[in-house]
Amino acid sequence: MELRPFKTLSRRTIIDQGPYLTVESHTVEWPDGQVISDWPWIVGPDAAIVLAITCDGKFLCFRQTKYAVEGTSLAPVGGMIEPGEDPLDGANRELLEETGFQSTDWIDLGSYRVDPNRGVGIRHLFLARDAQRVAEPSNDDIEDQELLHLAREELEDALRSGEFRVLSWAATVSLALQYLARSGEKD
Amino acid sequence: MELRPFKTLSRRTIIDQGPYLTVESHTVEWPDGQVISDWPWIVGPDAAIVLAITCDGKFLCFRQTKYAVEGTSLAPVGGMIEPGEDPLDGANRELLEETGFQSTDWIDLGSYRVDPNRGVGIRHLFLARDAQRVAEPSNDDIEDQELLHLAREELEDALRSGEFRVLSWAATVSLALQYLARSGEKD
Repeated sequence: MELRPFKTLSRRTIIDQGPYLTVESHTVEWPDGQVISDWPWIVGPDAAIVLAITCDGKFLCFRQTKYAVEGTSLAPVGGMIEPGEDPLDGANRELLEETGFQSTDWIDLGSYRVDPNRGVGIRHLFLARDAQRVAEPSNDDIEDQELLHLAREELEDALRSGEFRVLSWAATVSLALQYLARSGEKD
Repeated sequence: MELRPFKTLSRRTIIDQGPYLTVESHTVEWPDGQVISDWPWIVGPDAAIVLAITCDGKFLCFRQTKYAVEGTSLAPVGGMIEPGEDPLDGANRELLEETGFQSTDWIDLGSYRVDPNRGVGIRHLFLARDAQRVAEPSNDDIEDQELLHLAREELEDALRSGEFRVLSWAATVSLALQYLARSGEKD
């Protein structure tokens, strides 16, 4: 079966709030030829999410609050990619800024569209192994957060019980654990 | 360490396009007391995503096109939850509508916020086991798609090679495979 593409016939900006949010309205020709003239499209920042394992086998995670999450959540390292920045460079930068750790052993867990209809941005997911502390964290995020060093079993339990409460965070942890299970690594 | 909450001081609607997209601007008091007066907030529909295994051990997936995905992607079953609908009821309904299959053995893989800062909606992820064909699909989506029955190894290969190109789809498949590995099931 041949799957036909969508075509964007025109686009206009409805809201422009810089790198954090642009909302557009697209006129789209669907695969069946139908034209939809008011398709909402969201341009948000792309982000890199990093699950890091230290050289002594602990997983670096934050316990933190975020505006869109009720209560607290566990979270891997993550943050916005700067315009023009390579996703892996952004991942390295975020890991260093947020934790003071560096890694030279990176596994690419894939890049994924946030919303299949509205866009929203891309999430680039990584596993960073053998991370070593090289600096103080220089995190300027204004959220409250605390850095934890979790054993593999604690990480698995936390994922299973829903403590990673954001889609990209749960996806990163799950894909990373599957990678590690396949590669037969132990912590 | 006690993590302090965010407070929404006020909110106003900037764009109202019904159930598909509402954009708001919030005035937010951050945990450190700082007040931010123009925080973009996106209200999108919640969705249920379902990885279904048939009674003969095959995984139901679509090969499909979506507006926000270049080329084609593999996808589990999924769709918007109607206002007021229970997520599991929505998952059952989507599975039946899109594939004609029903299951009585549902595993809840968790509910996750799409974007930790902007909101966007919630994704409720499920594994449905022992699915049986009871009807013709009645799918009225206007995307092109074809329904595949994948063996477990094919599914694992497809996830690993990035063929599930949307965050909620990759998360569902990864979490489901981890659940199955834990429960020692074979296809």
